[in-house]
Order: sequence, then structure tokens, then C-alpha cells
Amino acid sequence: MPMSARIIDGRALAAEVRNEVAKGVAALVAGGAAVPELAVVLIGDDPASHVYVSNKVRQTEAVGMRSRRFVLAADTPERLLLDLIEQLNRDPAVSGILVQFPLPPQIDAARVVTAIRPDKDVDGFNPLNVGRTAAGMEGALVPCTPLGILRLIKSVHDDIAGFGALVVGASNVVGRPMARLLLQEMCTVSIAHVRTTDLERRCREADILVVATGVPGLIRGHFIKPGATVIDVGITRIKSGSGAERLVGDVAFDEAIEVAGAITPVPGGVGPMTIACLLANTLGAARMEAARSKAKEANVTTAV
Amino acid sequence: MPMSARIIDGRALAAEVRNEVAKGVAALVAGGAAVPELAVVLIGDDPASHVYVSNKVRQTEAVGMRSRRFVLAADTPERLLLDLIEQLNRDPAVSGILVQFPLPPQIDAARVVTAIRPDKDVDGFNPLNVGRTAAGMEGALVPCTPLGILRLIKSVHDDIAGFGALVVGASNVVGRPMARLLLQEMCTVSIAHVRTTDLERRCREADILVVATGVPGLIRGHFIKPGATVIDVGITRIKSGSGAERLVGDVAFDEAIEVAGAITPVPGGVGPMTIACLLANTLGAARMEAARSKAKEANVTTAV
Repeated sequence: MPMSARIIDGRALAAEVRNEVAKGVAALVAGGAAVPELAVVLIGDDPASHVYVSNKVRQTEAVGMRSRRFVLAADTPERLLLDLIEQLNRDPAVSGILVQFPLPPQIDAARVVTAIRPDKDVDGFNPLNVGRTAAGMEGALVPCTPLGILRLIKSVHDDIAGFGALVVGASNVVGRPMARLLLQEMCTVSIAHVRTTDLERRCREADILVVATGVPGLIRGHFIKPGATVIDVGITRIKSGSGAERLVGDVAFDEAIEVAGAITPVPGGVGPMTIACLLANTLGAARMEAARSKAKEANVTTAV
Repeated sequence: MPMSARIIDGRALAAEVRNEVAKGVAALVAGGAAVPELAVVLIGDDPASHVYVSNKVRQTEAVGMRSRRFVLAADTPERLLLDLIEQLNRDPAVSGILVQFPLPPQIDAARVVTAIRPDKDVDGFNPLNVGRTAAGMEGALVPCTPLGILRLIKSVHDDIAGFGALVVGASNVVGRPMARLLLQEMCTVSIAHVRTTDLERRCREADILVVATGVPGLIRGHFIKPGATVIDVGITRIKSGSGAERLVGDVAFDEAIEVAGAITPVPGGVGPMTIACLLANTLGAARMEAARSKAKEANVTTAV
């Protein structure tokens, strides 16, 4: 009888995270702090981006936080976006700032992520947050997708120190920050990408396999180490012959489920956790700001 | 007949780098810029640290740059060190700032590296430089030892994209930044450490093996993939039975030389390259500053 992997329920875990965040927001506000607020900036009219942003705004409000949405024209000059970011950086009501990717070609992503104040950088892409995470320093805001994935993995194994982890895909949004978090957890971490020659063998050695390539079905069942924890970040819309659409991941799910110990489905795995972790980051940013305000107040009182 | 690895001559390559830096300094000064200056701060009286700092100062001056040395008492409060750093940050004559490690226990290393202005951070430990390197952004100053190692590796293989690289040791000074640089070069990168369980197998799969653990002789000959490039960062002083001292690396050199394709000796491998790359970083920082001054001048002229 073939084994069948445990399916990691991203929707249920995301609901848990949102629940924790809602409690945290209530406690923060009860303690006298302002209601946390997330500012979301969207440039252009990519329909998928509009859907993502609407989801983010709706979920932000559902956990008791405020949100502000800025929609800029697709041909907005970079200078204008940077000015808006600067204004949001200075606005004490704004706890977190998120600029929705992808950006139009006239805007340089590195400049945008660098412009966001590190302690409001709820996407965790500012190089200062990247560096703090990479150096194992405290107080960094960490990108939402890897943060959510770590929580998914920990729902299977609480302590992953010494586990062999392979991250397939080296993007700044998922692969690289994921590798940093897994190293922080004391996994033996490897990172594979388009230039990797022996992907199959490397996958088969991994106790934890995180795949974020956008190549549907890249990882076949026989790539997977029996009992491994498999996280599928890919999500691609595929049209079948009959014209019906469905979403598929980077892992051949029907094969993988026979081999893996635990696996995330697509959809319903990584996706829901990403927004939930964005809310957690926004609460975290608001908490840090509240702590700073309190410290400042205390100093003023002492001085008086 | 056993093969014998090519021995990578770190002293010769370091001389090459110093030569390039000396030419670069001369050209910069000929172009009207100030002589680059390195400020070195040493806290306490660790004899090894004093030797390192003297070497750095001597070599800085040998390539035509200036140096300033600050020696603080072992019980210097952190505040005083941070004030000195701030003063050096603001001093336009100072191109690069280096605080010699290790630091005494009353001083927090994370606070010190964060305090150094990123564009004068010639050790590359400021989290902003760490993050820029990790995210593949331009303009980062990169830690000297991994920078030197990359050059040693490239003296063997010019293009290492697709190579399997294993870094043993996950420190912020060597292992982690090394992994980041190798990923930038499109190696398939793994990072092992004290919690790694199958070190021997992992080593045997690596085309490039960088070892920075401080455990003498940890890597035996049979750990090494035939033909691999082996970089030994370890350097430990060992007393033999007769009382004579010698320096040994983390790799069992006599065994490894029979298997590897190329290997660094200890001493004379990684060590000399580290200081040479510090000089290169100081020149790089001085060049960026000169470019900024020129841009500013041009703006003023335009405004007039």
C-alpha cells in the first residue's frame, strides 16, 4: 500500500495566524496605542495585482487594523512614487508600507525597497532588513512568503535543526530569504536555481524541500526523499484542452503525495499564509513603534 | 601514481592585488582626489589583534594610502567607541573605517558594525552592506576574507556558474558572506555547520569546498571530491611534542593534496588575500566618495 503524505492545510494555519493577529491588535489598542495601519501602494492596472491588493486590504481590516490604498497610474514617474513613500515614512499613523510588485519598467525596484523606512517595511525587502536577517540580528522584518512557509514547516516538525533543506529558486522574494530563515533554524541549507545541474539528486537528499520556480510540475515524485516535507510555492494558471482553467504548482502533486511525508497543496498551501504573515508583520511594526513611543514618553517624564 | 593538487599561491595573488590597488591609488590621486585613508580602531591588548592591525597599517601605507590607528583601553565603554566611529563617519578625510575584532564583552558587535557608515564600512559587516550583497544589489562593500577567497577560486576556474559549492562554517565573517558571493556567481551553494549530520558525504559532492571552522584537520582527504578546489580558511597554532609551534588549517593538507584539483596552503593561502582585499575595499570606498564629490561639484556648477 503506498503511503500518502499529510496535506498541510495552509488555509487553516492562516486562519490561526489571523486570529493571533486580531488578538494582538486588540491588546495593543487596549494598551493605548493607535490602531495599526497598513498603506498599500499599487502602480498600474495589472488585474492580478488589483486582486492581491484587495485581498490584503480586506484581510487587514478583518483583523481590526486600518488600511489606506494608493493607486497610481502605470506611467507614474519614479520620483513621484519615492515622494509618496517618503510621506508615508514620516506619517506617524502609518505602521506598515507595502508597494505591490511587479513594478512598471520606469521604476527601479531596488530604489523603491531601499526608500521604505526599515521599521515600516512589512514586506522585508529593504536591504537593511535583508542584512539583519542574513546576519542573524534581531528586530528585522522578514519577507512574508518565507515567514509563512517556515510556519507551515513547523506545523510538521517543531525543531528542524540539522535537517537538510533544499530551496529551489533563488529570488529575492522567496528563495534567498527562505534560505536565510532555514539557516537561522540551523538546517543544512542548499539553494538551487536555473544553473543547477543535478537537481534531481539534490532534491532526493532533502528532508525539507521548498520549491519556488514558477515551472509547473518541475519536481516529480521520484525526485522526493521518502518522508520529506515538501512546500510548493509555485502557482501557475493552466488551461486544459476543454478550456477549463486550473492552478498548478511546481511539484507534480499526485506523484509527490505518494512519497512525501507532508506536502502543501496548490492552491490552499503557501498562498493564504503570505497575506496572514503580512498582517503579522504589520502588527509587529506597530508594536515596535508603540514601544518606541513609550520609551520616548518615559524619557520625557524623567527629564521633567 | 597519485595526483597532486595545484597549490594556490595566496601570497603571489595578494601581491598582484596590492599592485593593482597601488596603481588605482596613484590614478585616483592624479585625478585630483585626496589620498585614501584607512582608520583602524583597536580595543584592548590582545597580542594577535595588535599584530593584525600593524600588518594592516603597514600594507595600507605600502600601497600609497594613509592610515590612522586608534588604540582604546580594554575597558572602554561602548558609548565612547560609538562616539569615535561617529566622528570618523563625519570626517571627510577618512575613506574607510575598520574596528578590529574580537571586541571586549562590554561592547556589542552588532551595534558597532551598524554604527559604521555603510560607504566607509571596508569590512562589509554593516547590515546594509550585508543586505545589498544578499539581494544582489550594486555598490555594496563585501567582507574581505570571502572576497579574497573568490579571487583565489577564480585563479583556478574563471567561470564557476553551475559548480556545486559547499561552505563549511556559518559565521558572519566568512561562511555566510562566502555563500552569498558564490550564489551571486551562480554556484549551487550549500552551507554546513555544527548541526550538519552528514558532512563527509556533502563534502564529497562539492566542486568547490570552502572550510572555515577553526577545527584543525576536520576535513580528511577522503572527504574531498577528486579534482575539487579546496579553500582552507582555518589557521590554528599547534604545539608539537618537542614544543615547536606550527600553523595548521581545517583541512588535512597532506591527504587533501592527493585528491583535490587545487588547494590553498596554511599559511600562505587565504590569510594574505584578506588584507589585500581590505586595501581594495578602501580604494573602492575612496573611489565612490570621489565620484560623489565630483557629482556634487557638477551640480553646484550647473546651479550657478
